[in-house]
Amino acid sequence: MIKVGIIGVGTVGTSVANILKDNADVISARAGNKIVVKSGVVKNLSKERGLDIKLTDNIDDILQDETIDIVVELMGGVDEAFEVVKRALAAGKAVVTANKALLAYHRYELQELAGDIPFEFEASVAGGIPIITALRDGLSANHIESIMGIMNGTCNYMMSKMTDEGVAYDAILKESQELGYAEADPTFDVGGYDAAHKLLILASIAYGINAKPEDILIEGIENVTQEDIAFAKEFGYAIKLLGIAKKDANEVELRVHACLIKKEEMIAKIDGVMNGISVVGDKVGETLYYGPGAGGDATASAVVANIIDIARSGKSTPMLGFNKPMEGNQLTLKSNDDIESKYYLRINVNDRAGVLANLAKIFENHHISIETMLQRPSEKESANLLISTHCAREKNLKNMINEIESLNFVNGRPAMIRII
Amino acid sequence: MIKVGIIGVGTVGTSVANILKDNADVISARAGNKIVVKSGVVKNLSKERGLDIKLTDNIDDILQDETIDIVVELMGGVDEAFEVVKRALAAGKAVVTANKALLAYHRYELQELAGDIPFEFEASVAGGIPIITALRDGLSANHIESIMGIMNGTCNYMMSKMTDEGVAYDAILKESQELGYAEADPTFDVGGYDAAHKLLILASIAYGINAKPEDILIEGIENVTQEDIAFAKEFGYAIKLLGIAKKDANEVELRVHACLIKKEEMIAKIDGVMNGISVVGDKVGETLYYGPGAGGDATASAVVANIIDIARSGKSTPMLGFNKPMEGNQLTLKSNDDIESKYYLRINVNDRAGVLANLAKIFENHHISIETMLQRPSEKESANLLISTHCAREKNLKNMINEIESLNFVNGRPAMIRII
Repeated sequence: MIKVGIIGVGTVGTSVANILKDNADVISARAGNKIVVKSGVVKNLSKERGLDIKLTDNIDDILQDETIDIVVELMGGVDEAFEVVKRALAAGKAVVTANKALLAYHRYELQELAGDIPFEFEASVAGGIPIITALRDGLSANHIESIMGIMNGTCNYMMSKMTDEGVAYDAILKESQELGYAEADPTFDVGGYDAAHKLLILASIAYGINAKPEDILIEGIENVTQEDIAFAKEFGYAIKLLGIAKKDANEVELRVHACLIKKEEMIAKIDGVMNGISVVGDKVGETLYYGPGAGGDATASAVVANIIDIARSGKSTPMLGFNKPMEGNQLTLKSNDDIESKYYLRINVNDRAGVLANLAKIFENHHISIETMLQRPSEKESANLLISTHCAREKNLKNMINEIESLNFVNGRPAMIRII
Repeated sequence: MIKVGIIGVGTVGTSVANILKDNADVISARAGNKIVVKSGVVKNLSKERGLDIKLTDNIDDILQDETIDIVVELMGGVDEAFEVVKRALAAGKAVVTANKALLAYHRYELQELAGDIPFEFEASVAGGIPIITALRDGLSANHIESIMGIMNGTCNYMMSKMTDEGVAYDAILKESQELGYAEADPTFDVGGYDAAHKLLILASIAYGINAKPEDILIEGIENVTQEDIAFAKEFGYAIKLLGIAKKDANEVELRVHACLIKKEEMIAKIDGVMNGISVVGDKVGETLYYGPGAGGDATASAVVANIIDIARSGKSTPMLGFNKPMEGNQLTLKSNDDIESKYYLRINVNDRAGVLANLAKIFENHHISIETMLQRPSEKESANLLISTHCAREKNLKNMINEIESLNFVNGRPAMIRII
């Protein structure tokens, strides 16, 4: 019999306990052993959770219990969780976590500490989709060329609603908060940070890259307007928040931002709160993984899969997929300035003679070539110029935006969305 | 160092050897060991393959070579492959195979024979998509409610072309043969048998069901016409050949046939030669896996992933996912007669008074309720009735079709497509 201790019995923890009970028949058949939750740690013991497992508010009841084989860390946060998980590993207990923030900062230290002790984290990226398993085990024969993922259901829901129903950003944010899809402070989701944590985890498995959130380009969806969406529709794009990892020779670029993406792409067809991750391998080509990226039961499905895996084999594959560093072609993180992309720009200008010629000259000076341009009337005496460019370097584009912002006939900072 | 012997060095075998060489840097980093192909078995030694591995036409050079750790079986066929694989296991060698026909017939005997010896087969279903890994490891916490898969790229290509370009079945089949998507004798693909082999493998992992091709419902796409496609478009459906596994209490239905499926479903959005498999788990909900279902490199990507997995851990999870049978709720195969579905029927009738009333009466007698009906002119003095039904039992529907076929005002056997 395998005994599990759950640290943090909230929505996901409750689902983990319920799945292990509800599906005990199929789980013990697959695992070869009965798996039971021995106890759970909560902060507030008086809250009713409808569970028949033993609850405690003392974390040592799990960490010092020698009969517990697997610690499931669902407390969230970075520093305290890191300490708890380190103690679990020091006590020789296998660890399963859904904590993406912990891994975004400490995954390499944890891999080192874990050594031969199983440490699994399928639920940390894209909830119920087994993307860690697919990438680490299923695609291991490939150099990964790119990963493009819808890894935040809140943003995808909001973008889908803005597109399908023509609602403004603020209204959809309010609705998402009422539905419980977005937090009272939505920055972590709509600012791209949640997706960035997940991207960093996938990038380690794909490339062995040890980057932290502050090292990579992270932007959100806060500035997307109905005008941008109309432009996207007219030119056959959808707008999505994507986490992108892309290999270019020995460099890897990592970035999270809103994207214009051709409607025909499979990933553009993923709407609503669902997640989807497209992975291109040099041998397999494109594969894509779709499913629920959040929710108690979906996330717990991934947690319990890890528990079964540990029960089955006693030994997992290396935590981040690499038994040793790649010889020779070690990959490094590309500087954000060097990222190349096509861009869409929305520039609000005063509607007077000479403006276009002036702007065209500035584009030329920054070596940025225009692909399409639309002019749309805006508020009185101003117009919005909607421009898409050919491929350009991020640094040049940013410099150009700074220059354009300073022009006396331009109102506010030009908005920019990258085109995939 | 891990040494591999490849039995059958055709398109996939050549790709396996090339991937192990081309991607040796990332593969040895992930596996923790260098993996090399020691030798390959071919029938015709004089054919140039552009490979620098040792080739032999004597299978014993691999089976009796004690330095070979992993036998990769890519010879195809059932009986001879079964003998070869049994000998490899008897010699204590791990086995990796892409042979779906072998597994459709002998997977349980092989699981028994393999015991603790790794036996892997990711490439046998849906080529480069790691669906075996996802289902066996990633979704193991779930009772699987259903699997619906586009598992045959040839059929999906043909259906997509018939839908997008309005071309007739025979013309598309000819084109597919010219492109190399379909064999000279296309029955194995267009008759649904290839998809059935794959479905049986997935059903064992999902349900522990030991069925053989002859036990389950297998139909192809040969009778789909442009008229059916027009009906589908009008009512918001796509037509796809699907492999379907569905749990209903303690019974599992397994079937392969053309389906009308609502365009909004993710799986309906998968076009061309690509494969896609939707899996619904009782806890996770729907997840979907998309990618190339065939091709040398894509298939070899899955073969090599299995080789890496064996090199990494030395021990795999149980071959078909179950360490022991489920206690209590053992699942059994549902009789084809008991399958329930909605149906679409195309009935060619002589265009005269009383026909509709007569048919309506027959539907009523068989307890089959009509949802929609369209009448379309056909050849002179005949008309096609296009009918969709509410949910009905397969046995009743078949009986009704037999009765309708025998009517003197009906021409030929009514065509039928199930609606998902």
